Amino acid sequence: MSDYLTSVREAQPLVICYTNDVVKNFTANGLLSLDASPAMSEAPEEAADFFKVAQALLINIGTLTQQSGEDMLKIAKEANRQNVPIVLDPVAVGASQFRKDFCRKFLEEIQVTVIKGNASEILSLVDASATMKGTDSTIEDVPVEAARKAHLKYGAAIVMTGKTDIIVQDGRVFALDNGTPLLVKVTGTGCLLGAVIASFLMKETHPSIEKLSEAVSYYTISAERAEVRAGADLPGTFSVAFLDALNQTATVAFQQEIKKREVKNDDI
Amino acid sequence: MSDYLTSVREAQPLVICYTNDVVKNFTANGLLSLDASPAMSEAPEEAADFFKVAQALLINIGTLTQQSGEDMLKIAKEANRQNVPIVLDPVAVGASQFRKDFCRKFLEEIQVTVIKGNASEILSLVDASATMKGTDSTIEDVPVEAARKAHLKYGAAIVMTGKTDIIVQDGRVFALDNGTPLLVKVTGTGCLLGAVIASFLMKETHPSIEKLSEAVSYYTISAERAEVRAGADLPGTFSVAFLDALNQTATVAFQQEIKKREVKNDDI
Amino acid sequence: MSDYLTSVREAQPLVICYTNDVVKNFTANGLLSLDASPAMSEAPEEAADFFKVAQALLINIGTLTQQSGEDMLKIAKEANRQNVPIVLDPVAVGASQFRKDFCRKFLEEIQVTVIKGNASEILSLVDASATMKGTDSTIEDVPVEAARKAHLKYGAAIVMTGKTDIIVQDGRVFALDNGTPLLVKVTGTGCLLGAVIASFLMKETHPSIEKLSEAVSYYTISAERAEVRAGADLPGTFSVAFLDALNQTATVAFQQEIKKREVKNDDI
Repeated sequence: MSDYLTSVREAQPLVICYTNDVVKNFTANGLLSLDASPAMSEAPEEAADFFKVAQALLINIGTLTQQSGEDMLKIAKEANRQNVPIVLDPVAVGASQFRKDFCRKFLEEIQVTVIKGNASEILSLVDASATMKGTDSTIEDVPVEAARKAHLKYGAAIVMTGKTDIIVQDGRVFALDNGTPLLVKVTGTGCLLGAVIASFLMKETHPSIEKLSEAVSYYTISAERAEVRAGADLPGTFSVAFLDALNQTATVAFQQEIKKREVKNDDI
Repeated sequence: MSDYLTSVREAQPLVICYTNDVVKNFTANGLLSLDASPAMSEAPEEAADFFKVAQALLINIGTLTQQSGEDMLKIAKEANRQNVPIVLDPVAVGASQFRKDFCRKFLEEIQVTVIKGNASEILSLVDASATMKGTDSTIEDVPVEAARKAHLKYGAAIVMTGKTDIIVQDGRVFALDNGTPLLVKVTGTGCLLGAVIASFLMKETHPSIEKLSEAVSYYTISAERAEVRAGADLPGTFSVAFLDALNQTATVAFQQEIKKREVKNDDI
Repeated sequence: MSDYLTSVREAQPLVICYTNDVVKNFTANGLLSLDASPAMSEAPEEAADFFKVAQALLINIGTLTQQSGEDMLKIAKEANRQNVPIVLDPVAVGASQFRKDFCRKFLEEIQVTVIKGNASEILSLVDASATMKGTDSTIEDVPVEAARKAHLKYGAAIVMTGKTDIIVQDGRVFALDNGTPLLVKVTGTGCLLGAVIASFLMKETHPSIEKLSEAVSYYTISAERAEVRAGADLPGTFSVAFLDALNQTATVAFQQEIKKREVKNDDI
């Protein structure tokens, strides 16, 4: 049995997060609960110094501006130069031409290790004109085909979140069914997942699908436990309980709760 | 009986928030508790795209800078062009000439639907030299006259917060007496109210006083319920319970708790 | 018996915080719990107006950029001009040349009242090449000598945080032993301490070691109480309980819990 979570907790990896203004505090607290070390450095001038010791970079475009976009590119190039793996979270990329243009440029110039987004975002990355309703190749309404395409197009692992989370890496596809609807009632939970995945990378630019899968399961199962403690309609309480659960969850205790299946080509 | 809250919960309106750096997370979580859809977009380059689907814009100057002021103006102009209603929260406008100059320019160039501020802020907007202590036309120490003047001067509805909240629209004045002193012990509660009002607008650039009144009452009564749960001197616990209450409060359950009265001209 | 905490609660001092993007909300809420008045103003254009009424300025470089560094310098110069005391928190100064260069320039051009940092940060300020492991003059692994050197070099009081907190002022050294390891599991707790110290200054540019000591003890003892309420491994719950405790702690109740001793030269 792989045990990536324990490795992360022991290594306490430094993760550089260039994330959006709304979720910086929640992201930092989530990573601390995981025993990772977040650093929200956004100055290109110090990227080279930080990447000497950092284990991963998260780029999240939730509050993208012209200036922050330019800085993200500079910082990500330095990460590539030093072989530090990058997780890209293309938040709401389909919502504006500005975001689409940035993501296209970013993915052209930068080698990304993981792209994490919801179905709509992943779709936008593979088909500029696509919308959620425009897809037909789905398992339980999840556009697995879009995730496969993004995986091939960008040479990156794909983590596509939704009621069922889909992971694509090395041509394989996992479907994960843990989690709770409460996650969408708290801002930044998707963003924090990107940071958690980055923490699991620990300098690996080609992580196994098992490792990515464990990162997602650790996250969604912690959310399930928080929901049990908080109750169903209390997003404030859930948010606090979730930070607690991320700290309390241990590998041995959650492996048996994982709802995971491999999706074969002919399942579609 | 009007039931604006239920309409908001059903419509899940997209609200663009250009708000201050301190309260972005709390604002987003508050809107999610209301079932609204917050987007903290601050790039003028994407304003036109976002306003095609957005139902309101919030502008909050709590951490105003030269650059953010310029961007707010561009974004607000685009909102005006697309008839998206704007709520302006002129945070601490009386505290610096820099903020006064910005608000004067903003209100000259932009048509605002609602101005939400405390008494001191509303006063600053109608009399640059005025201070709280300089007013005399009050009901229970609330400078209703300043709110009336601001309403006439800017052609906007006024929501003036305080121990008694005052709403002025279409020449009418409502006084609302719900709430709790705990609200001022948590940062961003005033700012979140601005965002909640924006969520209730749902594309209306001339909302009724009843609608604005319900937005405020929903907010202050949720705070009362959170206080009951949290206890009087626990601002951390209150903040969490308030996000819970904003999610739990339903129209049917709070209408009878509203403390509202109409203020007539000769009451002053 | 001195009672600085009560004075702060009565005065409700306005504290201007130019702090990092991750902790603005937590810092503002912490100061509100202390009954201080935070204002996160970052526009140099309004510094002169704000310092007419402000009692202290906090500068925290946690998310330093070229632009914010320039603005911090302008704002701090205005604070010096108006004799408003400054607390500098040189977050992660040893982590990049960019931060080292900024702090050197800042400390050359600005007179700082208090420098608050962990041992590694204080060391970086006195010896650019030093690392934690390179020091040998310690009491219980705390490099007191570095704090003394920083005190002499910059003419500022030093608050050096760690398992034991060290305060140096006027040639005297206090060692404080309150606190809980949970503090490092919540982002921004070190940053908030800087803001709390700023709140205690109340316009004094040469605070006594007793005053600084009480600010730290108020903070760490509030943390101990929050830990009792939260339990040991629940950082989310602790964070909320800590904001509660900062509001509930009263001077009379915590003085007897203070673990403080004076460190003499020949103790080293």
